[in-house]
Amino acid sequence: MARRARTASHELALATRATKDAALETMAAALLAAEAEVLAANAEDCARAEAGGTPPNVVDRLRLTPDRLAAMAQGLRDVAGLPDPVGEVVRGSTLANGLELRQLRVPFGVVGMIYEARPNVTVDAAGICLKSGNAVLLRGSSSAAGSNAALVAVLREAAARAGLPADVVQLVPADSRDTVTHLMRARGDVDVLIPRGGAGLIQAVVQGSTVPVIETGVGNCHVYVDAAADLDMALAIVLNSKTQRTSVCNSAESLLVHQAVAEEFLPRVAAALREQDVTIHGDAAFAALEGVLPATDEDWGTEYLALEISAAVVPDLDAAVAHVRRWSSGHTEAIVTGDLAAARRFTAMVDSAAVMVNASTRFTDGGELGFGAEIGISTQKLHARGPMGLTEMTSTKFVVTGDGHVR
Amino acid sequence: MARRARTASHELALATRATKDAALETMAAALLAAEAEVLAANAEDCARAEAGGTPPNVVDRLRLTPDRLAAMAQGLRDVAGLPDPVGEVVRGSTLANGLELRQLRVPFGVVGMIYEARPNVTVDAAGICLKSGNAVLLRGSSSAAGSNAALVAVLREAAARAGLPADVVQLVPADSRDTVTHLMRARGDVDVLIPRGGAGLIQAVVQGSTVPVIETGVGNCHVYVDAAADLDMALAIVLNSKTQRTSVCNSAESLLVHQAVAEEFLPRVAAALREQDVTIHGDAAFAALEGVLPATDEDWGTEYLALEISAAVVPDLDAAVAHVRRWSSGHTEAIVTGDLAAARRFTAMVDSAAVMVNASTRFTDGGELGFGAEIGISTQKLHARGPMGLTEMTSTKFVVTGDGHVR
Repeated sequence: MARRARTASHELALATRATKDAALETMAAALLAAEAEVLAANAEDCARAEAGGTPPNVVDRLRLTPDRLAAMAQGLRDVAGLPDPVGEVVRGSTLANGLELRQLRVPFGVVGMIYEARPNVTVDAAGICLKSGNAVLLRGSSSAAGSNAALVAVLREAAARAGLPADVVQLVPADSRDTVTHLMRARGDVDVLIPRGGAGLIQAVVQGSTVPVIETGVGNCHVYVDAAADLDMALAIVLNSKTQRTSVCNSAESLLVHQAVAEEFLPRVAAALREQDVTIHGDAAFAALEGVLPATDEDWGTEYLALEISAAVVPDLDAAVAHVRRWSSGHTEAIVTGDLAAARRFTAMVDSAAVMVNASTRFTDGGELGFGAEIGISTQKLHARGPMGLTEMTSTKFVVTGDGHVR
Repeated sequence: MARRARTASHELALATRATKDAALETMAAALLAAEAEVLAANAEDCARAEAGGTPPNVVDRLRLTPDRLAAMAQGLRDVAGLPDPVGEVVRGSTLANGLELRQLRVPFGVVGMIYEARPNVTVDAAGICLKSGNAVLLRGSSSAAGSNAALVAVLREAAARAGLPADVVQLVPADSRDTVTHLMRARGDVDVLIPRGGAGLIQAVVQGSTVPVIETGVGNCHVYVDAAADLDMALAIVLNSKTQRTSVCNSAESLLVHQAVAEEFLPRVAAALREQDVTIHGDAAFAALEGVLPATDEDWGTEYLALEISAAVVPDLDAAVAHVRRWSSGHTEAIVTGDLAAARRFTAMVDSAAVMVNASTRFTDGGELGFGAEIGISTQKLHARGPMGLTEMTSTKFVVTGDGHVR
């Protein structure tokens, strides 16, 4: 399959933006036209999951509806509307000896996605990979196998109708763990692997892959309320970061409060969180408040993805930074402060993909930051860091033109 | 050691360009002042290597001289003269909701280098890492252990004298293979590993590392002489690509000739290569010439790094591209042609780090392309591709500033 993807990628790399955008539009229309088949296949997946005792919230993530399918089709059209990253000249100059140097954006070639549950990832990833000129190998979960097969059949048929090889999108069988292993060992045949899902899946891929991996998504995000914070603003940012949506990687999992404002802020934030049904796992200062559970070291390192938060009082900004360095997953941290020097020091010292100043952690998102489509949020430092859009799905190539230049 | 490097990297990341440049100048002066100790340590390494039967050309790569030491010191001064990549704003905008977005260049943090023989890599890597704000763990070869220890002692002392932590440069013991394994398994403590050396070393690191790796340097580079080539130019480019320096990754290892010019070009190029003592491993067309050995499949895949070249006649440009796709290591390929459509097709279809048009493969080099210092040439597609300078030794961070923004 990887070799068929490579062959397809050679053709896709030469496709013009017009051809790719037309394919995306054809795919969107085909998805809407195939609503009945796709929803029927999905209903079977959902019924099987329910019969197997899958929790209702997981079945909900798996379930497709006409609205969700329409949103997936619209997502493809949105990608068609974004600029084509392929061919962009990243750097160029004429050297002293007259050689003309250009560094151009080119597709990776073959991208492997390993992901869990949600079938919308199938369509999103196919769209982003196609637009960035990459053939994609999709390895979804077995629970969504029927939905993914139906979706990929529609996408492949539409790609072929638009004049591209159907193999620009392929679904890797999910009937065995071996197919994940094959993907992880396909160095040379697969150019990059992107795992999306829980921490266990991501770590398994990171540890086991010889193909270069982009690590995504684990977010143990902190909000630090500084001595110079506007406490009303701090309260709003803590609540939004924690509760606006809890199941996502950019929600806050830990709260740090400067001791100078602790006496005033702790009762207020504890009451407000309690009102939103958020359980607090606190240090000694927090645990003195009603209803706060004592925090363990495990709490400081936990991404709850639920209405829970760890919370501590720190003696100063540097102690907050030290705590973040010790426990953060390097996704997003926020500082609330009115003090410019504190903001500068926090943003300089905290080494995370995104640092927010007086803003919710929830803004670390490709859509919110204006990048259009997003294929994941990188928490590693190599290649891409933070939200990854079309540009991050490309490599570069140097083209050097002379008229007989030798050294 | 990796944790000490992390602590040092926190301080180094905040150092101004002035501090870093002063440290580089101090290091350069200290190297020159320590000439006697460094050369004495190196003489012991060389004597031990000779006694152990190491081939003379390998001992030569190991040997330091006053001139070579002076060149290493000058290299540090050259790096001091280059712009600081840290803090560069890569992308920035004010979003519709008033959030101010900046994407800034930041150091990786801790870089691991695993390399063979040449002690100049010790100094080059230390200088490039320091300037780009990274603490470095240097794991050289055991054959250069004494030289590397002497060099790193000088560099550490100089860094401390310039006000930086000595631990920005550390030498990892080379007395056991275990230290390489530790580096490869230090995900989280080491941010990126760069192996430099032979194909065996690089593949061992790529296969065994959970730390993200940048693969460098294997170059099975091709020169394709098109039907529309100026054959004098083609001859000069083939000879320069093959013979100007044979032991380097950007030298040519394979020659492909369009059949339309084969009758005229083959005798000329074979005679010229023979005159330079180059052994040709040819296909049937080449093997009909005097002194040409028949090529095997192994030859097409071999990076000789010596006065040897594989050579074949191809029916057309697409066949040349197919041969390159099958056998190239993705480093550098060159086309010699006067036909614009052929040049465009070849550069579009060949997926290598660098594609030369009417220029020698030997130009794939950070110095030649004007990037200043070079820490290696990436042959992978993730993060960096082609010559890697200071910019390629950095990651980025998003800093988002609001005034109480929530979603």
